[in-house]
Amino acid sequence: MIGLDPGLRKTGWGIIEVEGSRLIHVANGIVHSDASCSLAERLVQLYDGLTSVIADWEPHSAAVEETFVNKNPTSTLKLGQARGVVLLVPAMAGIPVAEYTPNHIKKSVVGSGHAAKEQVHAMIGVLLPGVKVNGEDAGDALSVAICHAHNGGGHRSLHSTMSKKKNPLEEALNAPPGAQIIVPGRRQR
Amino acid sequence: MIGLDPGLRKTGWGIIEVEGSRLIHVANGIVHSDASCSLAERLVQLYDGLTSVIADWEPHSAAVEETFVNKNPTSTLKLGQARGVVLLVPAMAGIPVAEYTPNHIKKSVVGSGHAAKEQVHAMIGVLLPGVKVNGEDAGDALSVAICHAHNGGGHRSLHSTMSKKKNPLEEALNAPPGAQIIVPGRRQR
Repeated sequence: MIGLDPGLRKTGWGIIEVEGSRLIHVANGIVHSDASCSLAERLVQLYDGLTSVIADWEPHSAAVEETFVNKNPTSTLKLGQARGVVLLVPAMAGIPVAEYTPNHIKKSVVGSGHAAKEQVHAMIGVLLPGVKVNGEDAGDALSVAICHAHNGGGHRSLHSTMSKKKNPLEEALNAPPGAQIIVPGRRQR
Repeated sequence: MIGLDPGLRKTGWGIIEVEGSRLIHVANGIVHSDASCSLAERLVQLYDGLTSVIADWEPHSAAVEETFVNKNPTSTLKLGQARGVVLLVPAMAGIPVAEYTPNHIKKSVVGSGHAAKEQVHAMIGVLLPGVKVNGEDAGDALSVAICHAHNGGGHRSLHSTMSKKKNPLEEALNAPPGAQIIVPGRRQR
């Protein structure tokens, strides 16, 4: 599956696979657009870059963070335009696209909806052993992919993407804040 | 040339041609998306609909209204997503895409940047004799196309799209508010 973190200048992408209750990192990166080009041209750059990522890795499902609408309407519009293209590309390839709120993603990855960004990024290294994250946006995209995996997105049908079935890792991670979280491969303190 | 009025539910489009200082209506309409579908699917519907409009009519330039960012960030985001796809489609077809502010469009069509929507729509009938406008969004799209024509968008190169050369009709329409505007085919009062 592919996780996507939309942005006009940089759109992060991260691909993982689910093997039983284990997550495996496949690839991650960033699609850039050239700020010296027109808006329409930049959207084509995002479209082409993401289309080629999807052609290369053939994910069978996709997830995008539900955008936090900030107070600056110009930024919101700009982000919206990039997000429109980012949602479009997997859908054009026939891949179902799920959306998750930022809090849901944090809760899925760290176990608390109010975790700091640093905690989320640290957990990516724990959940995807050996991962080399190519920048913050690619890390954000991987966290969306992890959240999607924990919510059944690893299964190959649209139906199961929607299912509420939890895997053991998700149950551990969704424990209330302060609970001891046991993650395979991580030493207990 | 094609004018576009982006919206997630309805995107208006209007195609006109320039013959000397005369504008000729070619076609106009609306691309709908199905509100019962997911956001990603709706963006695909807009993409497919507009791609087919451009394939059918082969415009050589495109213009989109610069979006008024309103106070509701959720609406701004939604509009931004649709707008991203609307800007993408002509750019994917290699067509240059111009953007105009709402005031610039009103000034180009009616002669005043503060004209009411009704005045703009009435002028469409005057400037494009015989036009049958297929709904408000298609009318808005035609007004963007007219503005583009008045700003040199009818010429076939990107360079001339950028030129400041005015045609006589544009000069008449850009006269200060209150000035007598003489439009071919319109009886003077």
